[in-house]
Amino acid sequence: MSLKVAQMDISGNNGLYKTRYFTQILDHFSYRPESYQTFQQRYLINSTFWGGPRRNAPIFVYTGNEGDIEWFAQNTGFMFETAPHFNALLVFIEHRYYGKSMPFGGKKEVAYSNASMLGYLSSTQALADYATLITDLKKNLTAEHSPVVVFGGLAAWFRLKYPHIAIGALSSSAPILDFFNVTSPYIFNDIITRDFRSESKNCYKVIKRSWQKIEVMAKQQGGLEILRKSFRLCKNFKDAEYLTGWLETALVYAAMTDYPTPSNFLTPLPAYPIKQMCKAIDDPSKGDDDFAKLYGAANIYYNYSGGISCFDLMDDSDPHGLSGWGWQACTEMVMPIDGNRETSIFPAYKYNYTDTISSCAADSSVVSRPTWIPIEFGGHDIRRTLRRFGSNIIFFNGLRDPWSGGGVLKSISKSIVAIVAEKGAHHVDLRYSTSEDPEWLQDVRKKEIKIISGWISQYYRDLAK
Amino acid sequence: MSLKVAQMDISGNNGLYKTRYFTQILDHFSYRPESYQTFQQRYLINSTFWGGPRRNAPIFVYTGNEGDIEWFAQNTGFMFETAPHFNALLVFIEHRYYGKSMPFGGKKEVAYSNASMLGYLSSTQALADYATLITDLKKNLTAEHSPVVVFGGLAAWFRLKYPHIAIGALSSSAPILDFFNVTSPYIFNDIITRDFRSESKNCYKVIKRSWQKIEVMAKQQGGLEILRKSFRLCKNFKDAEYLTGWLETALVYAAMTDYPTPSNFLTPLPAYPIKQMCKAIDDPSKGDDDFAKLYGAANIYYNYSGGISCFDLMDDSDPHGLSGWGWQACTEMVMPIDGNRETSIFPAYKYNYTDTISSCAADSSVVSRPTWIPIEFGGHDIRRTLRRFGSNIIFFNGLRDPWSGGGVLKSISKSIVAIVAEKGAHHVDLRYSTSEDPEWLQDVRKKEIKIISGWISQYYRDLAK
Repeated sequence: MSLKVAQMDISGNNGLYKTRYFTQILDHFSYRPESYQTFQQRYLINSTFWGGPRRNAPIFVYTGNEGDIEWFAQNTGFMFETAPHFNALLVFIEHRYYGKSMPFGGKKEVAYSNASMLGYLSSTQALADYATLITDLKKNLTAEHSPVVVFGGLAAWFRLKYPHIAIGALSSSAPILDFFNVTSPYIFNDIITRDFRSESKNCYKVIKRSWQKIEVMAKQQGGLEILRKSFRLCKNFKDAEYLTGWLETALVYAAMTDYPTPSNFLTPLPAYPIKQMCKAIDDPSKGDDDFAKLYGAANIYYNYSGGISCFDLMDDSDPHGLSGWGWQACTEMVMPIDGNRETSIFPAYKYNYTDTISSCAADSSVVSRPTWIPIEFGGHDIRRTLRRFGSNIIFFNGLRDPWSGGGVLKSISKSIVAIVAEKGAHHVDLRYSTSEDPEWLQDVRKKEIKIISGWISQYYRDLAK
Repeated sequence: MSLKVAQMDISGNNGLYKTRYFTQILDHFSYRPESYQTFQQRYLINSTFWGGPRRNAPIFVYTGNEGDIEWFAQNTGFMFETAPHFNALLVFIEHRYYGKSMPFGGKKEVAYSNASMLGYLSSTQALADYATLITDLKKNLTAEHSPVVVFGGLAAWFRLKYPHIAIGALSSSAPILDFFNVTSPYIFNDIITRDFRSESKNCYKVIKRSWQKIEVMAKQQGGLEILRKSFRLCKNFKDAEYLTGWLETALVYAAMTDYPTPSNFLTPLPAYPIKQMCKAIDDPSKGDDDFAKLYGAANIYYNYSGGISCFDLMDDSDPHGLSGWGWQACTEMVMPIDGNRETSIFPAYKYNYTDTISSCAADSSVVSRPTWIPIEFGGHDIRRTLRRFGSNIIFFNGLRDPWSGGGVLKSISKSIVAIVAEKGAHHVDLRYSTSEDPEWLQDVRKKEIKIISGWISQYYRDLAK
């Protein structure tokens, strides 16, 4: 079995996938006149490797996470690389209100203009989109009996709610337990802390003490200018809070994407970026004050490929189309993940549920429904529930990934299986393989392929009965 | 184990249950400003037999069908009779837009006034109502670890979508396969035909030929008056189609409620009403023309307790609050069940999907979504799906019940079990037991109790782990 195909150029609408649009209903669950409005939902399709409907060859569907679907497709080489082995059709469906899948005429400014427009953005509507699109696509391809396997962050929920549509799900790095009262609000940042600390205690200490140093410096006369120069910020820099936020972001995303090989998920990065960032702190190339060290670390995250003359902290461009997440995080996806213990690498912050809710109300004028996701999808007793109900789900988590704190880390039953990679990061299993992949990563993928093969074989046996 | 409790007077808010209201959100799946509106959802509760939260004693929930919840509670003696054995709390939740659970201020005239108001009436919203109410109720009772078992027509769907909330479902007479392209559109009326034919061929023949006779008579001069007198109709009778519809209704509902003991579900009836109606046709007490025979049969269905001086066919009162069904049957619950073969007891009618859809558009100005229910809940491959996914569902069906044509009639797995009663009718298993119950019915209930006991024991074992 050969899983390697030549790495292909996948930028844009080339040979790797074709872009299609599906006329999707706006509101699946109500029947008001406005519920019937439609929008164009984008999906990408690749039939190069497909065995076709006659052989009931499988369909692999990426149930799009909250972002631009081309970006996810380009970072999900696993599906392209395994498609030839499975003779699978590949489909990547974009999540509504992200990328180019904008209701109300396709313009983001319109779709995001107010709560009446944006209110149809929800996970349940998105899952129903996938169910509707997949059913229609299979019908159009006369592939009603082709088994569908789903991939991505929403895959487990999709399998649980639509088992008649997907025979199995590879749920990668999905923090399905990261909801109100299910998981500790400190675990997300605990993991980031652990990641940096594991590289070196000094790295952890320097970062930890820097927050206060920045604060103190900002209050001094000329302090802001010193900070601006220390971190090579653009001239529009005026508020130390932006600097803090910018540094925090680098830490969070470095932890999420602490891949064992060079990558370009959120930004171009070297292999093991945390190690590199800590190296910059522990062995500074120039200057040895904390700001210089921290600058060195930030420069790895924000400027690994070089060429940036100054960092523009006011830049709110959104290359991966992620901006809908703020709304979702305030309405339904209320994840208490921003608490910081005293030992945290970030400034200590006692998690306060009420604060989160009121800042949502202030920022977006929305009333949060923090209890809804556990009602709709479960959480509290997930092990007890899924032990007796459901099948064919792989929960992959890499323990370097802060999202793994809300992941399912132990197998639940024979066919609801957790695969945990101690050194793994976010979605690492789904990435293109490289010749430098460590053995543990190769093993993870082999395991996943073996389990998926089992689902498909079982399905064919059942179909033949 | 004693399952018998004294039959109690259950009319109204007496010792048998207390009426409560829950502030329910109008739209669970969207976050528009109007989604946040709330309404008062009625539920009935009986804690007489409950073992309480300390013992994690079970909670039996009737997930209300599409009608007045008091009516269902009064016809679900099974739950009252088994509660002492299980030490169960009993809860009956009303379906939104039925009975007293009316959005928009509680007035039906308002809630039903147009599609913008009525559009929140859907099965998925109703299931989410149940999930929300049950979760809140358990929290308020500090009974988070009490296992919930659901009963009623929506129970199977509830278990499939909310396995973390209900450990099992007794789904009684649920036609979950009665949807577009899943089941034959002729089976519903085939079953009614079979029911009457099984009593006597003559009965079947007389009814079958009567439709044309009525039509011919109606066209004769003075024919309508003859019909009016033959069927003892009130003076407002003016259109033979109403007579035909009235007679058809009697046949359909007699088949649904062909119970082995006297009952009062839709109307007071003797034991085995079909047998009695056919007796009236085969051995007419007075007159032996077909109209007199048919009148005799109708009189059993519509006037068994006597006292009606004339039948008012224009009466559109709705004592069981069922009127929302017309809307649901046109929007999502599009069940092709009105086809009639040549051999049907009803006038032959080739089922035509387009006709159904266009009459919905004409009557209610709604666009049907006939493909939605199979997308949301499955159907086509239900056996293949549920064989490998899900557990703890009993599908009960009585084969006299026309709805059994869309029911799950064969067991799917060890824990997804079909119980089929050849002589059973709609919901017969859920009714109060009587001293005249036939053995098969006693056996059905024993089997159900045994299976439910198994679910609860397994849950307690899992909980203790």
